[in-house]
Amino acid sequence: MYNYKLIIKYDGSGYNGWQKQGNTKNTIQGALERAVKNVTGEEAEVVGSGRTDAGVHALAQVANFKLIRHVETLKLKEQLNRNLQDDICILSVEEVDTRFHSRLNAKGKKYLYRIQNTVESDVFCRNYKYHYDAYLDIELMRKAAELLVGEHDFKSFCSNRHMKKSTVRTIYSIDITRDEYGEVRILYHGNGFLYNMVRIITGTLIEVGRGVRDCDSIKDILCACDRQSAGATAPACGLILVEVEY
Amino acid sequence: MYNYKLIIKYDGSGYNGWQKQGNTKNTIQGALERAVKNVTGEEAEVVGSGRTDAGVHALAQVANFKLIRHVETLKLKEQLNRNLQDDICILSVEEVDTRFHSRLNAKGKKYLYRIQNTVESDVFCRNYKYHYDAYLDIELMRKAAELLVGEHDFKSFCSNRHMKKSTVRTIYSIDITRDEYGEVRILYHGNGFLYNMVRIITGTLIEVGRGVRDCDSIKDILCACDRQSAGATAPACGLILVEVEY
Repeated sequence: MYNYKLIIKYDGSGYNGWQKQGNTKNTIQGALERAVKNVTGEEAEVVGSGRTDAGVHALAQVANFKLIRHVETLKLKEQLNRNLQDDICILSVEEVDTRFHSRLNAKGKKYLYRIQNTVESDVFCRNYKYHYDAYLDIELMRKAAELLVGEHDFKSFCSNRHMKKSTVRTIYSIDITRDEYGEVRILYHGNGFLYNMVRIITGTLIEVGRGVRDCDSIKDILCACDRQSAGATAPACGLILVEVEY
Repeated sequence: MYNYKLIIKYDGSGYNGWQKQGNTKNTIQGALERAVKNVTGEEAEVVGSGRTDAGVHALAQVANFKLIRHVETLKLKEQLNRNLQDDICILSVEEVDTRFHSRLNAKGKKYLYRIQNTVESDVFCRNYKYHYDAYLDIELMRKAAELLVGEHDFKSFCSNRHMKKSTVRTIYSIDITRDEYGEVRILYHGNGFLYNMVRIITGTLIEVGRGVRDCDSIKDILCACDRQSAGATAPACGLILVEVEY
């Protein structure tokens, strides 16, 4: 078997997320597997570094799949792109060790959450930013974010109630900036993120920045280990998977 | 009567262009007129500085409309935005002299044409740029563009065969740049543009940049006064109305 690693950029607006599940149609994984079938004739499972929700985007998602026959990577990349709609783009195809597994070998991830924090929305980016028209105090958000950096049990920031595995994760950094056009960017870097974790943290930080929640409440949320204690889940459209580290 | 001037930003992807015409549904003008009706109760004609084609965008289109009753502009702006989908945004509402006419008083216009000139498309901008994957030599394009600057009869660059009015226009400048990500931008500044003129010029410049047409052929095209002599019409999605000058 030959193992191929893909780096993929996609606009998630038109898809029901990454993962094929039962009858779920129109997923990124499904589109990639169809393209691999068309190009190579082989039925391969395209394994992603992690699932992205419906509407979530990726600048550089990583996936891998195995083929029985050997193929030339540059040609494969071109042919896959020709077999994909223009909202998914394969940035690179690389032959890797057969033991490489895009999810199990991932050591870290970066996610970016974009908020258009102005009265008027950005009409050209409405699928790529969350438009939030009430002013956010990013100094308050930074203070709250500091309390989340480090190793913690993030159970309160996970939507999956039936999570049996550990909910302990490490966040290396959360960087929050505002540009001159009123875009607030929150860049998350961690060793892994639970289901909906980035969106729930973002929703909670927004409540802090809006002044309706104290910075210090972050400590209580972490202690509670209860999803109900955290803030609302921020919309999918603002979220972008930026990088997967190995 | 009170006269109101609008500055409008829109993503034209989902619309059949600016102008209401017979049974044409889903136009920018139609959406604006419905919003004005909802907010003020008055049936006003919203006159644009010019039509944009289906799929063409605007950073700052200008329009005006007249009302019998006086309204407060800041409130009007807010209410119009609340009555519009998030792909159209009113940037400003200003009360102007009753003689102001957004089309007849326009003295100049700037249009930007964006080309993603890389093998891979930009998945997030596929509705806002023309993806052209064969390399364009922008030095050749600049040479050809120079021949179009100035006052000329642009009949060869007009799709309207039954144009009865003058087809003489002045182009003040055509600036062509390429950024580090392979985006080629062509910024047009002129006193006015004929139907499809920017898109036909762009299509012709692309043929020059690709090396399939000589720079000097521009002179012949201008002399011919025949649409057939010019290049193909470039796709609507790359075109953005940037500014209207008065």
